Parts: sequence; structure tokens; C-alpha cells
Amino acid sequence: MARAATKISVVDQTGPSERILQILTESARLFATNGYDGTSMRDIAAACGISKSLLYHHFADKDEIFARIALGSTRELCEFVTARIPEDAAPAARIRAFMIGTAEYFHRYRWAWLASTSSFWSDPEARRQKERMMWRDRYEGLLRTLLMEAIEAGEMRPVDVSHAGRLILSSLNWMHRWYKPEKGLTAVQIAETYFDMIFNGLKAEPPAP
Amino acid sequence: MARAATKISVVDQTGPSERILQILTESARLFATNGYDGTSMRDIAAACGISKSLLYHHFADKDEIFARIALGSTRELCEFVTARIPEDAAPAARIRAFMIGTAEYFHRYRWAWLASTSSFWSDPEARRQKERMMWRDRYEGLLRTLLMEAIEAGEMRPVDVSHAGRLILSSLNWMHRWYKPEKGLTAVQIAETYFDMIFNGLKAEPPAP
Repeated sequence: MARAATKISVVDQTGPSERILQILTESARLFATNGYDGTSMRDIAAACGISKSLLYHHFADKDEIFARIALGSTRELCEFVTARIPEDAAPAARIRAFMIGTAEYFHRYRWAWLASTSSFWSDPEARRQKERMMWRDRYEGLLRTLLMEAIEAGEMRPVDVSHAGRLILSSLNWMHRWYKPEKGLTAVQIAETYFDMIFNGLKAEPPAP
Repeated sequence: MARAATKISVVDQTGPSERILQILTESARLFATNGYDGTSMRDIAAACGISKSLLYHHFADKDEIFARIALGSTRELCEFVTARIPEDAAPAARIRAFMIGTAEYFHRYRWAWLASTSSFWSDPEARRQKERMMWRDRYEGLLRTLLMEAIEAGEMRPVDVSHAGRLILSSLNWMHRWYKPEKGLTAVQIAETYFDMIFNGLKAEPPAP
């Protein structure tokens, strides 16, 4: 029963329960601050304001929480974003959807943002680390594919897709360092702004002849 | 005499000696990996392959090295970039020079890159932390000023300069996570590529009528 909870995926209709999200968020914060060894199940329960037995009801042990954060954040980001890219839209609109989907995911799942952008989360277990890299490659590869399609469709000029992809991912990845959800634009609005700037450029339109 | 060495600024003609750069680079790596308390002068000397007495010849103590890295990296980045912006160039060319100057600085002073992008470097001494923020604000403010000038000159469309500034800084700041100086484009070439993409946009030119 305890194990069942971790199978919940964010791409389900309902998504993980508020409680699971709280546990993952607090654990990610504690791992990133105090390290894996410096964080106990007791610490996590205390940070969530719940009993240790309730915590064990959801997760069998600390490693299961870690795995869910380290691996889950990458796999779920990829699935979440993929599910939000409209099949029948023009390539540029699909790139925009990729950016907005990423921002939306990170806004909803702050623990995942922390996990995916911090270098702390190198998983000691080689198999999981490999699986994580596979999902990361798939996520980044999706963006490069969308960029190539936009070039082939004549919507985008023939830039180097790996550098264009880096630029887009950098803009999204760096957000966790300054983004405050409670003030200013939402994460999604920022992604829309970035898409506009990167796709249309900052240069002024030449005056009509 | 030991103190004199730390007054050398990277904006001097000569820049800091290779030895000073080596000490700062190794120290930054050790601080970021093992923390301030977990790093001794002995560790730093060993990482550099020099004697402790030679290390003390250059720096009076560990705090002096820390201060040079934490504060110096921000002040020197600002001075280095400011000195590379041509006075008489058009605003867009000045924005390009800002991006290239930043990339050049970080390529030359890897320790500074590590220090400025890691959240580890919050200085326990409030006065220095404040001075560091002041230099950071000045550096970021310079970019926003250049962006405003480009809009006023009609070179750039009237986008929100704070978001445009964030986008440019994100592209540069995230480079430390993937950039390998020994392969592919140089940091300066990447900055040039990003400038082209952000300024001119990815969108294909409309076909000539």
C-alpha cells in the first residue's frame, strides 16, 4: 500500500495528492539544503507537520522519496510537456507550447524544479541515473525536433538547433533562481514573453516603405 | 606584502598572476564542494601543489581568499564588462559587447563563474554581502540601460527591459552548467550566437514581395 502512492504520475487526471506534493516539496528542500545523509525521515515528517507513521504510509523509506524526486522529476517533466504539445499546430506554436508546458510544470511542482536544476541530484544508483539521463535527453531532443520542424516548414531561419535549444532551455532553467510565484508575471506568462522575444527577436521592425 | 597581491585587479593591463588565478580557481572549487568550514589552507595549498608558506605569501588567511572570490568576482565582472563596451557604438552593438564581455570574463576566470552562479557564496559578513549586491545591481542595471537606449534609438522594439535583461543574463548564467571550454564553440562565440538569436529572432524573414 505504501508503494502504491509513488506510482501516481502527475500526468494522471488527478495528479499526486496535496500530501504527496507536500512531502516531495519539503524533502527536495531538505535534501538540497542538508544533503541526503543529513536528512532523516524524522526531519521530513517534522517539516511537513505530520507524524512519522503517516509519512511511512506514503513512502517505504527515504530512498523511495529520493528516487521519486530525482528520477520522477525528469520523467514526469518530459511526459507532462509532451502531453501539452498540440499535434496539429504549426511548428512555432508547438515550440511555444513546449516552453509554456515546462513553465507550468515547474510552477506546479516546485520540488521538481529544484531537483532538475540543482547539481546535487546525481543519483548514486547507476541504473536510475542512466534512466534519468535518458528522460532528460528525450525532453531536450523533443525541443530540438520541434526546432528542426520549424526550420523545415520555413517558419524559422536555419540556425543551429542545438544552440537555439540551449538558449530556450537556459531561459527556463534559470527561472528557479529569481522567480517568485507570488509577485509579477506568472511562470507561464514569463515563458510566453521569452518565446515572443526569442522567436520574434528584440530588433525593431523596419519602417514600412 | 602578502596583502598587496589581492589588490591586483583583473582590469589591470596584466591581470592577476597565473599563481593567483590558480589559487582562486582551486579555492572556489573546494569551497563549492566542501563548504567554507570544510576547506583548510592546507587543502588549498595541496590542491595547487604548492607549499603552505607560498600560499600565505599571497593570502593572509582563508577569509581573504573567500572575500576575493565572493566579492571580487562580482565587482571585477562589472568593471571588466563595463571597460569593454565601446562608447561610440550603436546601442545594439553595445548590448552585444556586454554579452561577449561577460562570456570572456567567465571563460578567463572560471572561479568567478562558479562563485557568481552558485548560491553557496552568500557572504556571512553583511557589509561585504551588501557591497556584492551593489556590484551585481550595477552590472544588471548596465544591461537594462543599454536595452533602454536601444529602444529609444529605435533599434529595438519596446519590450519590457527587465524581462529582456533576464533572458540575456539567463542565457549567459546557465552556460556554466554545460559549457566545456575544450570542445565546440568558445564562450565568446556562444555569446555572439545568442546575441544574434535574441536580437534578430529565430523567425524566418518574410519572403521578398
